Amino acid sequence: MDKKVYQCTVSAPVNIAVIKYWGKRDVALNLPTNSSISVTLSQDDLRTVTTASCSEKFENDTLWLNGNAEEIFANKRLRVCVEELRKARLDLEEENDDLDKIGALKLHVVSENNFPTAAGLASSAAGYAAFCEAIARLYDLPWTPTQLSRIARQGSGSACRSLFGGYVAWEMGELHSGADSVAVQVEPVENWPEIRVAVLVASAAKKGVSSTAGMQATVASSTLFQHRIQNIVPQRIQEMKTAIRERDFETFAKLTMTDSNQFHACCLDTFPPIFYLNDTSRAVIRVVENINATAGKTIAAYTFDAGPNAVIYFLEENSEIVLNTLYAVTKNAEGWSKQYGSSPVTVDSAAANIVSSGISRVILTRVGNGPRVLTIDESLIDASGNPKFIGSH
Amino acid sequence: MDKKVYQCTVSAPVNIAVIKYWGKRDVALNLPTNSSISVTLSQDDLRTVTTASCSEKFENDTLWLNGNAEEIFANKRLRVCVEELRKARLDLEEENDDLDKIGALKLHVVSENNFPTAAGLASSAAGYAAFCEAIARLYDLPWTPTQLSRIARQGSGSACRSLFGGYVAWEMGELHSGADSVAVQVEPVENWPEIRVAVLVASAAKKGVSSTAGMQATVASSTLFQHRIQNIVPQRIQEMKTAIRERDFETFAKLTMTDSNQFHACCLDTFPPIFYLNDTSRAVIRVVENINATAGKTIAAYTFDAGPNAVIYFLEENSEIVLNTLYAVTKNAEGWSKQYGSSPVTVDSAAANIVSSGISRVILTRVGNGPRVLTIDESLIDASGNPKFIGSH
Repeated sequence: MDKKVYQCTVSAPVNIAVIKYWGKRDVALNLPTNSSISVTLSQDDLRTVTTASCSEKFENDTLWLNGNAEEIFANKRLRVCVEELRKARLDLEEENDDLDKIGALKLHVVSENNFPTAAGLASSAAGYAAFCEAIARLYDLPWTPTQLSRIARQGSGSACRSLFGGYVAWEMGELHSGADSVAVQVEPVENWPEIRVAVLVASAAKKGVSSTAGMQATVASSTLFQHRIQNIVPQRIQEMKTAIRERDFETFAKLTMTDSNQFHACCLDTFPPIFYLNDTSRAVIRVVENINATAGKTIAAYTFDAGPNAVIYFLEENSEIVLNTLYAVTKNAEGWSKQYGSSPVTVDSAAANIVSSGISRVILTRVGNGPRVLTIDESLIDASGNPKFIGSH
Repeated sequence: MDKKVYQCTVSAPVNIAVIKYWGKRDVALNLPTNSSISVTLSQDDLRTVTTASCSEKFENDTLWLNGNAEEIFANKRLRVCVEELRKARLDLEEENDDLDKIGALKLHVVSENNFPTAAGLASSAAGYAAFCEAIARLYDLPWTPTQLSRIARQGSGSACRSLFGGYVAWEMGELHSGADSVAVQVEPVENWPEIRVAVLVASAAKKGVSSTAGMQATVASSTLFQHRIQNIVPQRIQEMKTAIRERDFETFAKLTMTDSNQFHACCLDTFPPIFYLNDTSRAVIRVVENINATAGKTIAAYTFDAGPNAVIYFLEENSEIVLNTLYAVTKNAEGWSKQYGSSPVTVDSAAANIVSSGISRVILTRVGNGPRVLTIDESLIDASGNPKFIGSH
């Protein structure tokens, strides 16, 4: 008789922080030195799809990530997540005899991003969120997203924020155990659905210092960083939550830009200094400044993570001025689905030239919802429990 | 009878800060938010020569700066300097009837840099130092360099440090009047004559935000800056003085690099952000890191002012490894007087390419002495008291 394959497929979103996570107070547990806030991006445009399955016939706990197999237990971060989720399932099975005994079975997990990993789009956040969500659903764990976020956080810190849609805070917590270092929703998409996002992917976006190594170098050597986490971020977190609740774009934008700048300032104050922004990033900042100057108010906000790619937030009502301007300076980049009208903004010509040659791809998206359970049709495994290897790599 | 022309010609040096001046607590008086320390560069390589003259036959107080005439009283900073110096001379004449009555005569001042102003080499420091020194000597003022530094500071803040050779501190002072915001010598050249300097001038060194505007934007908007000036710089000043006294290059170098980085971090934390470092600057930092990694200790230190040009400090004993490496990556730049040997340092190839195309000129120099009085042969005025217009522009 064929052994049964249990499975569940989910998708999870990318999130982009507007108050930045940078620095761990506990590296093993991924406990941050400060709280952070992010916007969840729509899975219509950027997502990780993951199928978690288990069966008596599987021999190893294996993850296929974008087609590459790895043993889950060879990767400490993956192992920590699986161990916690499996233990929770085994506890349930012990309490309830009616449940299928699947907690002890080996897992096959297949995960695919719909965007190139090389694009540097914080794929680990969506990846670990989908990984944990898929296994938690496979195991039918009766957990809230906040409860699951404690597990996902241990995979990749910012993954905890990808378990919610809309506007999400990762509260740093105080406990040594990390039990209170979890994600909570600040507001759902519905509170402020008008937020639009343009991701400008830089051509030479090869990875510099990894964010894990980089943030701990900052913690160890930047004399400005302690001031940031103790005296500046706590107030910004409160101001950002209020801005999101009140749909106050100008405050949201100003905080987003200044916090991105301050994160990169702390990288520069690290010794040896860490540089994620390059001349292209700086030119994008100039273009956003040109847009806001023409508008006479702040209608666009830039933010940069641990790389030169720019993420630009704006409101739907300002799509035309923002996108026409971005199109004018990046029209040769991949990702534009149509021709836009002429730019109403006069862009600094030196900046326009640098952006034009430095940005290779544009992704237009918006604020979106949290993880979704997908149908069996979208499963990434075949009937025997092996990866189908579909999807774009 | 021909009216007499009184004159005096001096030269003054450039200085490059190792603990940075950035931020004024009083804009009119050029009172800084923090103390700073600099190294005076040799006038054999970089200098401003200035002749100050006065005569009954002159009709206006006029400055010819690199061949361009301007009325001294049309420039507030020049006027403040002249008014204070003239008043000091008039006071002397009042006390001593034997003195020639020259304080009330109009001034002709002619000033020439021996390096292109466009090179962005803080020419205002050498310029105002030479301007004040030449007039003070013309007037025979019995002042110490520290007393004169109070005047030069009001012309251009960092000019006060160019009145001394060697290693110089500008003590921020506490008084509202600025009377105690003056330069003092930390150590003369003789204490540590082995310091060598390579200036790497960036090709696209067009001036961004002026330092005067930039620093006040930082004071107004950077939330990290207050922490820097209150909690970080005071200790660094003490550590740097000790390093200079003890000829401790590794500490000198580490402080120089971290303070340059922190100054630029505060620029990035300014809103809107100010960028002086570009991809070329960052690649130079990488080259210096490569040199130090090969040496197994810190033998070279970078610092950057309000522009992308790099200044690299090293000891004479390490000239070969440092200069051979810099030559290898900038051999097409102007300023190399010979071919150097092959580089013992393996430079990151991406950084080497960026430096090679981004650096257009190299100036090799060393720590040097303070202002000098030159002979009448080197005067920049002719017998009638008008500029000779010699020298390189």
